[in-house]
Amino acid sequence: MFESAELGHKVDKETFEEQEPQLRKDLLDAQFDLAEAGDFSVIIVIAGVDGGGRGETINTLNAWMDPRHIETNGLALPSDEEAARPPMWRFWRRLPPNGKIGIFFGSWYTLPILDRAYGRTSDADLDQSIEEIDRFERMLTDEGVLLLKFWFHLPKKAQRRRLKRLEGDPKTRWRVSKTDWERFGMYDRFREISGHALRLTSTAHAPWTVVEATDARYRHLSVGRTILEVLRRRLSQTGERRRRPLPYPVLPRLPDLDGERLVERLDLTQKLSRKDYRGELERWQGRLNRLARSRKFAKRALVAVFEGQDAAGKGGAIRRVTAALDARFYRIVPVAAPSDEERAHPYLWRFWRHVPGHGLVVIFDRSWYGRVLVERVEKLTGEAAWMRAYAEINDFEDQLDRSGIVLAKFWLTIDRDEQLKRFKEREKHHFKRFKITPDDWRNREKWDAYDDAVCDMVDRTSTGIAPWTLVEANDKYFARIKVLKTLVRRLDEAL
Amino acid sequence: MFESAELGHKVDKETFEEQEPQLRKDLLDAQFDLAEAGDFSVIIVIAGVDGGGRGETINTLNAWMDPRHIETNGLALPSDEEAARPPMWRFWRRLPPNGKIGIFFGSWYTLPILDRAYGRTSDADLDQSIEEIDRFERMLTDEGVLLLKFWFHLPKKAQRRRLKRLEGDPKTRWRVSKTDWERFGMYDRFREISGHALRLTSTAHAPWTVVEATDARYRHLSVGRTILEVLRRRLSQTGERRRRPLPYPVLPRLPDLDGERLVERLDLTQKLSRKDYRGELERWQGRLNRLARSRKFAKRALVAVFEGQDAAGKGGAIRRVTAALDARFYRIVPVAAPSDEERAHPYLWRFWRHVPGHGLVVIFDRSWYGRVLVERVEKLTGEAAWMRAYAEINDFEDQLDRSGIVLAKFWLTIDRDEQLKRFKEREKHHFKRFKITPDDWRNREKWDAYDDAVCDMVDRTSTGIAPWTLVEANDKYFARIKVLKTLVRRLDEAL
Repeated sequence: MFESAELGHKVDKETFEEQEPQLRKDLLDAQFDLAEAGDFSVIIVIAGVDGGGRGETINTLNAWMDPRHIETNGLALPSDEEAARPPMWRFWRRLPPNGKIGIFFGSWYTLPILDRAYGRTSDADLDQSIEEIDRFERMLTDEGVLLLKFWFHLPKKAQRRRLKRLEGDPKTRWRVSKTDWERFGMYDRFREISGHALRLTSTAHAPWTVVEATDARYRHLSVGRTILEVLRRRLSQTGERRRRPLPYPVLPRLPDLDGERLVERLDLTQKLSRKDYRGELERWQGRLNRLARSRKFAKRALVAVFEGQDAAGKGGAIRRVTAALDARFYRIVPVAAPSDEERAHPYLWRFWRHVPGHGLVVIFDRSWYGRVLVERVEKLTGEAAWMRAYAEINDFEDQLDRSGIVLAKFWLTIDRDEQLKRFKEREKHHFKRFKITPDDWRNREKWDAYDDAVCDMVDRTSTGIAPWTLVEANDKYFARIKVLKTLVRRLDEAL
Repeated sequence: MFESAELGHKVDKETFEEQEPQLRKDLLDAQFDLAEAGDFSVIIVIAGVDGGGRGETINTLNAWMDPRHIETNGLALPSDEEAARPPMWRFWRRLPPNGKIGIFFGSWYTLPILDRAYGRTSDADLDQSIEEIDRFERMLTDEGVLLLKFWFHLPKKAQRRRLKRLEGDPKTRWRVSKTDWERFGMYDRFREISGHALRLTSTAHAPWTVVEATDARYRHLSVGRTILEVLRRRLSQTGERRRRPLPYPVLPRLPDLDGERLVERLDLTQKLSRKDYRGELERWQGRLNRLARSRKFAKRALVAVFEGQDAAGKGGAIRRVTAALDARFYRIVPVAAPSDEERAHPYLWRFWRHVPGHGLVVIFDRSWYGRVLVERVEKLTGEAAWMRAYAEINDFEDQLDRSGIVLAKFWLTIDRDEQLKRFKEREKHHFKRFKITPDDWRNREKWDAYDDAVCDMVDRTSTGIAPWTLVEANDKYFARIKVLKTLVRRLDEAL
């Protein structure tokens, strides 16, 4: 992994001064074109050994390019808002919007490598982290992000020399800490672990560039030229190939042999009398209230997702849930059209923003499943994009789960006749809040396509940590109680 | 202040049950209309004594209305990200967007009143806080926010009774803490201090509604009906009167008697030789670098604002500043058209988002002064709005200053000939990054109007804590050194 970066690469002053002005101008032009195009973003990860001059090169890149369109993220310890959420949240919130460059000094690689080196985690833990990283980066590049990763390497002797030199100069002494020497003592261990991590994460869509860091001029030029070259190539593409250049192999989906479908097996005749409903409502709301106020929940959080056909009663069910909660500790996120800031980021960014901290409940009224439901059925998103969404969603939910967030997902289902009845009722009563739009009527014609999408969604995303609950909703009372009961059970199991 | 709220107001069960369904329906309709209109937001502050049932009423409001379009903020202690910024930052970040309702349980009143009651601050401090609150609320309502403030009052006896009752019931015992009794012991003191605060902040645009809190039904109904009534009245307006209903008296502005203008007094012939520039650049960049790395700066922050005519050299000056800084610790905010999320909030929201935490530098390339420069000259904003912006800006900068942020503001100025020369140069060289647009030529014709705007801006916003530095920028070298020098001096004085 590091052999080519121990050859003593250097660039003499003359060559550097000859090449720098043109490189600078070209980088500025490419950056300008990126801003003009505005249809993808660039992420540059600068990682590597201590004393490798990462900060220096990042400063040079900012000097060469237009720093107004670069966001440099020097990540130190997580803030308490970050510590209360899944580890990737702090990176998601810093993803640059389209047209911009985000530089990460301190990235999703830092902690897994450090933790393994200090023996806080096992080889298996490291490999698990690496797999997660791999999927995260795959998601980024699938979403059109141009991801560049540089690893600054110093041969052992060179690192010692460098640390000594920095220490010897009163102007740079502050840059060398005790930790730097401590880590230098672990040089071989770090080399082995990072070598392993780099090997497994040097993928076709996001390969590492290992840079010998001994000579600053060589380092700056290597990084600068790589960025320029990759950026130019990407910019030379047009249309969809520029926005999302990766081809995505999609396996053909075959209908089930006997045509039996999960959603059609639900017993929609189940119901509750008004009297039973009253009693059950009080009972389950009371239990939910106590669970949400419990000491244990104060260190956890709940994310509940509501999906369902038009008029299936999502709103009513949600209100029966929130009625059991303290308004200070929940937030409902109604998912409608994305804002322009949301549109300029990878798809899941607009949901990551709402991931709750400790002790909080977030309810999504429609959710990230829009991609595999309405966007699939209405053909708003290409097949490749919604096909890969299943895996991205599972990753997302997996991260929520591992950070202690309890997940509950509800699909409220009614049959065609019940929907027609509810539509007509709404029309008759002219409730302006529940206006039936031509869209609602059109959606009815796609009932079968929605059924297909729902079956696929459940098959592919109903996991042990985040199971789907299919709610028979022809009877509103029955549906609401089933939702409350399920929430109570999910919390009960988790706490 | 509280007399009318000690009369033993109550509503019997029958009356409540008779009125509730209609109120509920009307509130939902009004809330729906608010979302449809989407041109203003509603903020509801629920404050008052402990045990006054604030949480309960907030829950009731959420049950009555559609909680999907309400954001309830239960503010406890500031997070560390909040603690590292001006106190109002945590409220700004929670302001609801247009079309939504934000409820604040725990507001900008909480801390000033508590601090005074516990003797941590003086009467004068309290009055200063009150004045700030007053200006903040004035800004909100000027920006079109519908601001409703409720104070839940309990006569002393009623408060004792209520705390005892809560304590007596095992189901509600958890709601009464030692602090509640401690504060009850200070009842008279709290009454006096909050009475004072309420009196001074019961303004025409944001009056308090004091509600006797003894009886829950009375409390819920009073609050619900007030919200409904105020919201309906506002919604019955149309166009500009709905968006921003307040008339704003604008005094006529008279030109100075002798027509002498500050900006014309600048000596634009000042210059530096290339050789002197090199030396000075190294010297001041070095000092700036050391200051930004100093231990003292780690507890402070720097906000630098760059404004100037087209082609005055803002970008070049900014790059000479950032070249002296570590890219991990600065962020440049280029101010262009607001995003749709920004447009849905009060004007200054999009700048508050970028207020730095400790140890950081934020550079604004154009800024909140756009309102009194381009928006004024191009008539994008009415006179009332930009006239009040001066005071709002001074408030904003005052808050930055008091939280330890050092402010520096630069107006880079060139004369007409110099601008023409630079425009022509750019055209000749076809630098695509510095394309001259028809806008640039048009702006030239408004030179005098801009001069007026700049003079007013400097006269009204050059304060002791945030002085303007007018930078003679016909000579780029001279301008850049003046900028660097000024930054060093500002930091030197502050640290």
